[in-house]
Amino acid sequence: MAYRTDLALEAREMYYETAAAEAEIDGVEVSGEEFGEDLKVTRVKITSPAGEKALNKPMGNYVTIEIPNPMCEDSELYKKVRDICAKEIKNILNLSGKETIMVIGLGNQNIIADALGPRVVEELVITRHLKKYIPNEFGEETRSVCALSPGVLGTTGIETGEVVKGLVEKVRPDILIAVDALCSRRMDRVNSTIQIADTGITPGAGVGNTRMSLSRETLGIPVIAIGVPTVVDAATIAGDTIDLIAEEFKSHSAEKGKLLENLGEIGNEPDKYTLIKKVLSPSFGDLIVAPKDVDKAVEDISSVIAAGINLALHDEEAAV
Amino acid sequence: MAYRTDLALEAREMYYETAAAEAEIDGVEVSGEEFGEDLKVTRVKITSPAGEKALNKPMGNYVTIEIPNPMCEDSELYKKVRDICAKEIKNILNLSGKETIMVIGLGNQNIIADALGPRVVEELVITRHLKKYIPNEFGEETRSVCALSPGVLGTTGIETGEVVKGLVEKVRPDILIAVDALCSRRMDRVNSTIQIADTGITPGAGVGNTRMSLSRETLGIPVIAIGVPTVVDAATIAGDTIDLIAEEFKSHSAEKGKLLENLGEIGNEPDKYTLIKKVLSPSFGDLIVAPKDVDKAVEDISSVIAAGINLALHDEEAAV
Amino acid sequence: MAYRTDLALEAREMYYETAAAEAEIDGVEVSGEEFGEDLKVTRVKITSPAGEKALNKPMGNYVTIEIPNPMCEDSELYKKVRDICAKEIKNILNLSGKETIMVIGLGNQNIIADALGPRVVEELVITRHLKKYIPNEFGEETRSVCALSPGVLGTTGIETGEVVKGLVEKVRPDILIAVDALCSRRMDRVNSTIQIADTGITPGAGVGNTRMSLSRETLGIPVIAIGVPTVVDAATIAGDTIDLIAEEFKSHSAEKGKLLENLGEIGNEPDKYTLIKKVLSPSFGDLIVAPKDVDKAVEDISSVIAAGINLALHDEEAAV
Amino acid sequence: MAYRTDLALEAREMYYETAAAEAEIDGVEVSGEEFGEDLKVTRVKITSPAGEKALNKPMGNYVTIEIPNPMCEDSELYKKVRDICAKEIKNILNLSGKETIMVIGLGNQNIIADALGPRVVEELVITRHLKKYIPNEFGEETRSVCALSPGVLGTTGIETGEVVKGLVEKVRPDILIAVDALCSRRMDRVNSTIQIADTGITPGAGVGNTRMSLSRETLGIPVIAIGVPTVVDAATIAGDTIDLIAEEFKSHSAEKGKLLENLGEIGNEPDKYTLIKKVLSPSFGDLIVAPKDVDKAVEDISSVIAAGINLALHDEEAAV
Repeated sequence: MAYRTDLALEAREMYYETAAAEAEIDGVEVSGEEFGEDLKVTRVKITSPAGEKALNKPMGNYVTIEIPNPMCEDSELYKKVRDICAKEIKNILNLSGKETIMVIGLGNQNIIADALGPRVVEELVITRHLKKYIPNEFGEETRSVCALSPGVLGTTGIETGEVVKGLVEKVRPDILIAVDALCSRRMDRVNSTIQIADTGITPGAGVGNTRMSLSRETLGIPVIAIGVPTVVDAATIAGDTIDLIAEEFKSHSAEKGKLLENLGEIGNEPDKYTLIKKVLSPSFGDLIVAPKDVDKAVEDISSVIAAGINLALHDEEAAV
Repeated sequence: MAYRTDLALEAREMYYETAAAEAEIDGVEVSGEEFGEDLKVTRVKITSPAGEKALNKPMGNYVTIEIPNPMCEDSELYKKVRDICAKEIKNILNLSGKETIMVIGLGNQNIIADALGPRVVEELVITRHLKKYIPNEFGEETRSVCALSPGVLGTTGIETGEVVKGLVEKVRPDILIAVDALCSRRMDRVNSTIQIADTGITPGAGVGNTRMSLSRETLGIPVIAIGVPTVVDAATIAGDTIDLIAEEFKSHSAEKGKLLENLGEIGNEPDKYTLIKKVLSPSFGDLIVAPKDVDKAVEDISSVIAAGINLALHDEEAAV
Repeated sequence: MAYRTDLALEAREMYYETAAAEAEIDGVEVSGEEFGEDLKVTRVKITSPAGEKALNKPMGNYVTIEIPNPMCEDSELYKKVRDICAKEIKNILNLSGKETIMVIGLGNQNIIADALGPRVVEELVITRHLKKYIPNEFGEETRSVCALSPGVLGTTGIETGEVVKGLVEKVRPDILIAVDALCSRRMDRVNSTIQIADTGITPGAGVGNTRMSLSRETLGIPVIAIGVPTVVDAATIAGDTIDLIAEEFKSHSAEKGKLLENLGEIGNEPDKYTLIKKVLSPSFGDLIVAPKDVDKAVEDISSVIAAGINLALHDEEAAV
Repeated sequence: MAYRTDLALEAREMYYETAAAEAEIDGVEVSGEEFGEDLKVTRVKITSPAGEKALNKPMGNYVTIEIPNPMCEDSELYKKVRDICAKEIKNILNLSGKETIMVIGLGNQNIIADALGPRVVEELVITRHLKKYIPNEFGEETRSVCALSPGVLGTTGIETGEVVKGLVEKVRPDILIAVDALCSRRMDRVNSTIQIADTGITPGAGVGNTRMSLSRETLGIPVIAIGVPTVVDAATIAGDTIDLIAEEFKSHSAEKGKLLENLGEIGNEPDKYTLIKKVLSPSFGDLIVAPKDVDKAVEDISSVIAAGINLALHDEEAAV
């Protein structure tokens, strides 16, 4: 599997594309719900090493919420998305009632396409200090929530994993929620997909570096990752377009359509994406792009995720 | 000429690409200077209707400054770019000494990829009110400069042209400078090209609407346009990539390389770009994208342009 | 009347303070409503030149909404304030149904304490361009609304009055709404008072310059001004404090309390405020200060005013 | 000593005011330099417990740089202040050459008056990751610098001290530099004083809570604190004003001037400030205010401090 993606849903689609499989994948359970044309939930559960291998993703739960884009804050739709987020986060957290939750906003807050995590953190209802310093007013029924945005390696000089590990050792939360902007491998996922997974996350993984992941293995507590693809690489845009042209050509010339589909092979590369990356690499190999209006999209989506987390972690009254 | 571009330099390149011409274009004069590998100035002067037709651009002067990207503020390079900007702006303005200059920052300040104009305006040295209200302190040697960012139609409900015409009628400046972010037709122009032209500008022209242009014809005064491509459309990324693959293929199979080059024709469209736009249009036809780090790039380039304008319009002391 | 204030409510209080009057003021009608402890509406109507003179304010309607501070966005309270704003704006606008409304956001968007107007404008539902360019979809039932923030003299070099007059002549709206941050003459008004008046406004009036006002006289259309005091001058803080000390002293020494009350007289100045301004003037005469957390306050209040305007001008569906 | 202040310079002034002392204070050494009317450096060294007691400050070095306000970025003055900062920081750091430095930006980045620390951190030249991941390119001559802004208790739910201790344990820097906005006890210090001290700092100390300090005692490494007063409390404004009136009165009535000076005593409080706090407390006891244009001031001062730190920690080439 040459295509690497942050989204389990895409991994599954790619699997079917390349394997041309029609049957169910062993060790992969899928269920879902639809709430109208542009709003649906898909739950992918990878239950065995076979499933792990097929989708190139660790065992665990992956919930994908496909949302309309754009989605205006304050609308009915917004509230529906918020409630779905809250419900899915609650399910995957499986809280008993007294946990301390730490939320980490990954990403660079000064690059708007990367600022989803820090933006979510800014809108959370924080209670840990209230419970600690005025316990009489905020008792057992208030869940203890704290949150921090640790910045990125390039601007702090410190591995995000180091910062988070230091925090976890001091604060000793029961669960970590990490929110991050992702890079998509398909244009149509950008700003229209929210993925919630219980398998952890590796900050800055998109760049290909070996970084310390945030996971139960490294931190000793469950790590729930919430991600939204906000960017796409130039190679993906080119690849998606060539696919569309191939489709168009097939109707009048199967041969030429096929030629486009098999560009990778012709270029002596394992697949089309690798070929494209190769020709782009001298000047644009790692060009990551965001839709022009990414500012508004990130604002709206981070707002709806924060509202969903608030609703999942606090009583309804506290959350508004 | 199907490719529409905001840059005269690109228009000239496209002319050569499609016309396969090697000779000079009639009615088009070109001169230039190089200041190191990534820093060069090209001056295109369209002097006749023949030149106008060849480049699909109105007669006038077009100066293109190619700059390195990224370019850190405060560096030596930054100062060199600033000085080149100042010199070229001064040349094209051809000031006699007592003019009132109005600078208009076009674009939407809340979408960073579109905010170049408003950002430049924020950093200008404004003097008109000083000359008017405390003339004893700011005499003849201070040039009168005013500036405003009129927003965009979608957020104001008012045509930018209407706003500017209203302003020009009230303030009666001698020259208008309009600064805008542009859409490029080539990936490698993005955030690495500054164009200065004396032929006016049409706000939001990229979107294809018929809008009132800002020009000598509509405003009655000379209009200098300063533009930087900060975005590119998805079709351009796909088209540029296919060209690179075609180039790659030519070495081992001229036939397959040629096939890729002639995609437009095969798809029964006048050219490849039109074909790509067509296949993308149902879902991504107008997808305009910006490099992920557009925030930093726009900050640096708007800063260097503002510094260049300040230097061109004011004495050196006033400009710092 | 030495105390100058932007708020009619304060003008009336000052009148009573200085005049020690208990009777109603001739030519001034007052009515009001309370909606709980910290939320009340006072409507002052100045109906004659006598009232004008008494309150040092032009004839017209002045509605003051006193609101709790802080007031969290999204709360029940927020919705109540929004609905009250909408109702009072609707009353004072007295719309027939087909008017074009222009909203002007006064102030400097880069100084948060002064950015109330531009912030309100950013959150308005703008429709004029939709009605103009796609009239089939947005028919008679949609009111035509446009809006712009013209900046301030110090950063544009152009009188705000000039910019607005140019706009009004081009766009020809039926009514102008101007939103501005004000300077209060009482600490406890800051960020807790919204004034709506139909007598126009003078941008930057606080600074004491003679500027062109925005009013029916200068623009030829009704001008509704919405203002919120976000800052206070240092002299007011000092004066208010001395009053509180005087009050404190009165209980044990009438003489010393009185001395503090009459500081102005003792200092050979018409009143205490003038004395304070005089002693502060060499270094802090015009020191205008904002509460430390002005960022959050301006964000919340501009949001509630924008929501109120949207509700007043559009159908409920369009407004959300 | 009732007046509490973050600035050693103010502490010394207050000592002289209350003690009416003229002699040198035992255990306190003072030296200084002037660089023009508004630019001077004062170095206060507290060398004994007696000095500690006199100034109510721990033993150590306190450098105060008094700077003009406003101070425009890019000017000659700006460069002079930057160089003075660099020199004083270098002196107090006393580096041997190979230290790893961690800079902590204290304060709430979303409240501009409190955002000085995070703003400084944003402009630092960060090198720790470069030395770690590409040691061949960044060798011994590059000093290892990392930086982070840990937010504030109210928005993270985590004590700043906990976050920093966790970081120090993971990263093991040799020296910590903490940058913070302070509350001044004198109006004329606001945005015109930079204090550099080697005695540590207590985040949010102004609010009166007992918080964990950042110091050699708590972190095990030297802690250099850089602070700028950006706000002042309302009681200070009132107190300063009453002093000015007292001064004014003294010329024509010593008795009344004295009365104002002794307000505290008359009100049965230890001093005037305590009295003012008392009368203000029901509604404005803790009102902290910032000059209206605090946005610009914080931008300029954080920029000059960051430039000073960069110059102190890196070779000149790396710093630009």
